[in-house]
Amino acid sequence: MKQASLYERLHLTHPIIQAPMAGGISTPELTAAVSNNGCLGMIAAGYLDPDALLKEIKAVKKKTKNWFGVNLFVPNVYEIEDCALHTSKTLLEPIHESLHIEQHQVSLPEAKCDDDNYHQLIDLIIREKVPVCTFTFGLPSRDVIHRLKQQHIILIGTATTVKEAIEIERAGLDMVILQGSEAGGHRGTFLHTEDEGLIGLMALIPQAVRLINIPVIAAGGIMDGRALMAARCLGAAAVQMGTAFLTCTESGATDIHKQAVTKATDSQTTLTSAFSGKKARGINNTFIRMMQKHEHDLPVFPIQNALTKSIRAASSNQNNREFMSLWSGQSPMLASLQSAEELIERVMEEAEEVWNGI
Amino acid sequence: MKQASLYERLHLTHPIIQAPMAGGISTPELTAAVSNNGCLGMIAAGYLDPDALLKEIKAVKKKTKNWFGVNLFVPNVYEIEDCALHTSKTLLEPIHESLHIEQHQVSLPEAKCDDDNYHQLIDLIIREKVPVCTFTFGLPSRDVIHRLKQQHIILIGTATTVKEAIEIERAGLDMVILQGSEAGGHRGTFLHTEDEGLIGLMALIPQAVRLINIPVIAAGGIMDGRALMAARCLGAAAVQMGTAFLTCTESGATDIHKQAVTKATDSQTTLTSAFSGKKARGINNTFIRMMQKHEHDLPVFPIQNALTKSIRAASSNQNNREFMSLWSGQSPMLASLQSAEELIERVMEEAEEVWNGI
Repeated sequence: MKQASLYERLHLTHPIIQAPMAGGISTPELTAAVSNNGCLGMIAAGYLDPDALLKEIKAVKKKTKNWFGVNLFVPNVYEIEDCALHTSKTLLEPIHESLHIEQHQVSLPEAKCDDDNYHQLIDLIIREKVPVCTFTFGLPSRDVIHRLKQQHIILIGTATTVKEAIEIERAGLDMVILQGSEAGGHRGTFLHTEDEGLIGLMALIPQAVRLINIPVIAAGGIMDGRALMAARCLGAAAVQMGTAFLTCTESGATDIHKQAVTKATDSQTTLTSAFSGKKARGINNTFIRMMQKHEHDLPVFPIQNALTKSIRAASSNQNNREFMSLWSGQSPMLASLQSAEELIERVMEEAEEVWNGI
Repeated sequence: MKQASLYERLHLTHPIIQAPMAGGISTPELTAAVSNNGCLGMIAAGYLDPDALLKEIKAVKKKTKNWFGVNLFVPNVYEIEDCALHTSKTLLEPIHESLHIEQHQVSLPEAKCDDDNYHQLIDLIIREKVPVCTFTFGLPSRDVIHRLKQQHIILIGTATTVKEAIEIERAGLDMVILQGSEAGGHRGTFLHTEDEGLIGLMALIPQAVRLINIPVIAAGGIMDGRALMAARCLGAAAVQMGTAFLTCTESGATDIHKQAVTKATDSQTTLTSAFSGKKARGINNTFIRMMQKHEHDLPVFPIQNALTKSIRAASSNQNNREFMSLWSGQSPMLASLQSAEELIERVMEEAEEVWNGI
């Protein structure tokens, strides 16, 4: 029942949504390829301004007539703390030197909450009639929900605990992504400490589906037909896959990032807040190890993200994997280099095999 | 194929193994009830001496003619560090006072590795013809494996990463328990740091089953038919359930522990090494929070375990949940007070419903 309604409502042939991967990984090519192959492609608008998002939407629309979605970061209120800022700059300085970064002008976010940009993105989503909008890092306000719902845009929240899922349903969103501790990239936790929001999908989904009625989309470490069928058994109607799409031909991830993922093992990812000020899962490297002891003394998101930008860029340009954010979920051993179409076909074939084999 | 062979080899009607829960939770009543209902009951011998284990085996044999198993801790080599010992005693002293523990004679393990007791337990398992033996915290030696295999005892290792699972297969064990990060109680990690061994089952199982051929038993947060079927889709032949059996009538967990589990939510468990010196998952409380900052300065397992014994006992006797180890997996919201028979029946019914509903 839930599943049928989700398929129809998201215009899906297969129960797969491509995770929005900010920082250039989710290209219009990837988004469109996913949507053209019976799944839902997503634009990652978390770090975009309205001009950049408009460009992405137009590029996707050129490449597909099918549905796609946009993901937004719900802005958090933050303070710029001088002491944390000083600590971070002190720790990053020797890294700048070692990477020969001479000019590293940091443009720190000015406001205490980047609300303006967010509201302009909402306006744009309405104007461009984007059919699906997902949210990370919190709940959109009543007003935002009301405006988007008036345009019949489907709204999907991201939860990392049962309580967050319940709040998303209460707020009136249409569906919920349950992000397990297995997931790569940033944690979506917003009602708990980041440690409290680390629930494995095997535990998170069955507890959540007993208490909520909106359809559930499972995210975290899902990269093959086995995990797709497992997520459905647990009570999810569909899955969201990030790392699996990250190594696809159409993804904008650098080769060094793709190689790092395909060569990693399950025990080589770790959680760090050193890149952005918010916890995220990626492949362990020198930067993460150097900063580990100091994580609690660094500025919050998005300040730390701005401070490490030049380091991440230089490291990537120099083909040095040790100072880049190599986001990955906990199943890198299932990653392979292929087109999005090949990936989707393989996963759906495997899912059928799993089903017939039990 | 793998599953059929596992059912037969473990004499199972249902693909469920009861997790061995040390410290008096796995009673002979629980073990026998599980075995009498088509599943495999387990004796937790981790903290037992040969006399105590013999008593448990005899009690179980009185109550069931069916197969059951014994779980052993593979002894680790450890050092008693004076500085860590001093830190721990200093931190625990005010807790002793607040709980009015006047005499707290600590009998610290004498040897650097408690090998003698372990080998006596092995001898006993052979003498008593226990049909199944599972291992936690490491690989048994070649000699131990050889001796047990000669008696056709089925040997099962515990892995928390793909690499550990591969090593267990290589060593010649018959099956492997994959312990996901969702699991309650102690982490079985032995080839990695404890942080590296925290893989969610959704990621751990599909990566492991591609590289190993021995049957897989999934453990961690599995408490209902949804998770049972999910584990099978991922590639496991059976599941091991701990917390689900902990709140059963036949379990020896204190009422205060059972109540704490049934009232907890998914985000209220946490990992701590403060109780024993080894990381374990339980419901957060005052003791865990007090010790959190100092975890890295405490003695290793089993020294810290000996040091906190009187505190855990006094807290339990005083019906004070704040200084006890309230082990629980990440799905406490699925726990209920019932008999083992009722639990097994419900899980199997749910599993069938899940199967028919997809």
